[in-house]
Amino acid sequence: MKAEIVAIGTELLLGEIANTNAQYLSLKLAELGIDVYYHSTVGDNLVRIVDTLGRAAERADLVIVTGGLGPTEDDLTRQAVSMVSNCPLELSTKALGHLEQYFGQVCRPATKNNLRQAYFPTGSVLLDNPRGTALGFVLPTQRALFICLPGVPRELYVMFEQGLSYLRKRLEAEEQHVIESRVLKVCGIGESALEEQISDLVGLANPSVALYAKLGEVRIRITAKAGDKTQAQALIAPVENTVRQRLGTMVYGSGNDELEEVVGKMLLAKRQTLSIAESCTGGLVGHRLTNVSGSSGFLKASLVTYTNEAKNKLLGVPQEVLDQAGAVSEVTAKRMACGVRDLMQTDYGLAVTGIAGPLSDVSGKPVGLVYIAVVGERTIVEEHHFGGDREQIKYRSSQGALDLLRRQLLC
Amino acid sequence: MKAEIVAIGTELLLGEIANTNAQYLSLKLAELGIDVYYHSTVGDNLVRIVDTLGRAAERADLVIVTGGLGPTEDDLTRQAVSMVSNCPLELSTKALGHLEQYFGQVCRPATKNNLRQAYFPTGSVLLDNPRGTALGFVLPTQRALFICLPGVPRELYVMFEQGLSYLRKRLEAEEQHVIESRVLKVCGIGESALEEQISDLVGLANPSVALYAKLGEVRIRITAKAGDKTQAQALIAPVENTVRQRLGTMVYGSGNDELEEVVGKMLLAKRQTLSIAESCTGGLVGHRLTNVSGSSGFLKASLVTYTNEAKNKLLGVPQEVLDQAGAVSEVTAKRMACGVRDLMQTDYGLAVTGIAGPLSDVSGKPVGLVYIAVVGERTIVEEHHFGGDREQIKYRSSQGALDLLRRQLLC
Repeated sequence: MKAEIVAIGTELLLGEIANTNAQYLSLKLAELGIDVYYHSTVGDNLVRIVDTLGRAAERADLVIVTGGLGPTEDDLTRQAVSMVSNCPLELSTKALGHLEQYFGQVCRPATKNNLRQAYFPTGSVLLDNPRGTALGFVLPTQRALFICLPGVPRELYVMFEQGLSYLRKRLEAEEQHVIESRVLKVCGIGESALEEQISDLVGLANPSVALYAKLGEVRIRITAKAGDKTQAQALIAPVENTVRQRLGTMVYGSGNDELEEVVGKMLLAKRQTLSIAESCTGGLVGHRLTNVSGSSGFLKASLVTYTNEAKNKLLGVPQEVLDQAGAVSEVTAKRMACGVRDLMQTDYGLAVTGIAGPLSDVSGKPVGLVYIAVVGERTIVEEHHFGGDREQIKYRSSQGALDLLRRQLLC
Repeated sequence: MKAEIVAIGTELLLGEIANTNAQYLSLKLAELGIDVYYHSTVGDNLVRIVDTLGRAAERADLVIVTGGLGPTEDDLTRQAVSMVSNCPLELSTKALGHLEQYFGQVCRPATKNNLRQAYFPTGSVLLDNPRGTALGFVLPTQRALFICLPGVPRELYVMFEQGLSYLRKRLEAEEQHVIESRVLKVCGIGESALEEQISDLVGLANPSVALYAKLGEVRIRITAKAGDKTQAQALIAPVENTVRQRLGTMVYGSGNDELEEVVGKMLLAKRQTLSIAESCTGGLVGHRLTNVSGSSGFLKASLVTYTNEAKNKLLGVPQEVLDQAGAVSEVTAKRMACGVRDLMQTDYGLAVTGIAGPLSDVSGKPVGLVYIAVVGERTIVEEHHFGGDREQIKYRSSQGALDLLRRQLLC
């Protein structure tokens, strides 16, 4: 199966945003063994959109369209696909219901413009959008299969997953092999160091093993091609076992696991509670843990003690510790973790203090120096030297803190 | 002048990298007043590259090609442009000299493959590459002006500057106009409602006015075309004034302004301090404000009081208020803001409490219900009903909190 990805939006042609959707979708299609021959980007102009979609439908079996599904007059995807496919637009009661429910929740009336979002080419299967008003759609035609997704990445990601089920059916009908992937997520080791540990596996053909670095972690993708899913999984399993044996507890999860979710689930399963004292991360550790649904079951409080005064007053870090060792020190991190744990009476206390930059503090200690402490049955303090700019150092610190807590919870 | 950007490289179609070159070049061309109608990406396949370049030369006056200039057999740009333009490849002594110098410097011999990089379509003007072996080239043809650049971003940036001098000469001969854009950022109103308020402006031709929605805010882009920058700005100014008059303080900034930066700078300028009490946002408000460099100059602490116990113990919210009105209520929000302000002795106290979902709390109040309070010289509490999933509700709540504080600081 050949695919083409068509992005619609003048903002892309003006250079206001990069077309990261094309990259995301290309990766996903590659995993399915679908060849992508072209990416095309066109502005909010009906003639040019119709021309581009027509050509895409000629040269590809699958056309994925991103953008142009909003409520305004320059959102033309529904209309253009209708013209290219000769499927007239019709009002969808399902879409109307979605709009009513959405505007009910936000206590605002839908405007006239919003009603445009309820019309789709006849024969479309709608894709739910839990994150906004714009529904996507799948339209099988004589010429090609169209999958139309919104341009907003976070809406696109969740809706593409729904489109995938149609794709998989189509693929199974066409060819007799499946591609299975397994992603392992690793914390606490760099990409190059990790590659050295598993360099013999990176050379394998089936399954293939690929590494890719994300901020604060590395992912390992193991991909197998086989006659069916079970055979593919049987190829993956021994390689996954080897990786896990070599990396041990550095593997924190797989697939869609997020570090904060892994940690949250461990706390919930153990019925243990947590309180946090943050300094340089400014609230990011608490923010990430409260993205986990049900976090009120384990998190009592997170105190962002940004000043020395707050560290002393709220957490009881002694003034002489702050004066002598400084706010960014092993002893302060430990005192912060103990202080918040005592204050909130939780099983664990977790603390982060460091220098996120771009400037150092009065101590002149280097930017990127971060201390992380966890206090539970035992007390552990780690010193880190993180690279990057302010936001990257904050994120890496939060990752380090969550990972230290995770390793403590494993014991 | 109309332009098309053609990216060549199978790695783009596999999703291994995002096409950030297209964004960079589009921004640069917009500054010159050149309209970009299409971006196209094609793999390392001669037939498909020739087809794509031929179409680009038909529909554009300027074709910028990125990638495919390396030494290997799948680097096909020189050959494809030669075929499309009917200008045969010939050996360039200048390119040969560049290769000899380069390999002398790195103390390695050139391979046979490298010699491919010394052949260019007849009539090409070469672009120097101080950072690698691949020279770019400019080729004026009957059909279009080709500018061919390497795919490596840092090589492309420096070489595009050289290509610009050719472009400018061509533009001066052709037409005398530039394009200027101004982006206004708006909080506290949805995209459709905003469009209704300025629908008369959205129909304008020069300057044109376009809206686009981001999570928790809407952006308005005003774009003018004129003989020079001053004239373009003179076209934009009255429209910008009209928008600002109609929307008033809902416009929080322009260009690259971020809401957290705007708020942080206001606090720093006024030498005023802030403390925060968060519940449903879990630390996100503090995280965003501490992304602002210099935030330790105004933020004393942020207390994420996730449980009723923490709200009572740390902030002094009376137990009977929590029992009767509930944690998610106007009075609790107000008490939280007062409590943290008193505790930390700051000029302002800011508080957020709400239901981020996916489930409600014991009260059964609706998901998305959020109360935000700011306490300074005056006290204001706002009730919101936010849509979306857990992370979106958290983000919208943080946006609402920062915006309420901003409006308070404006008084």
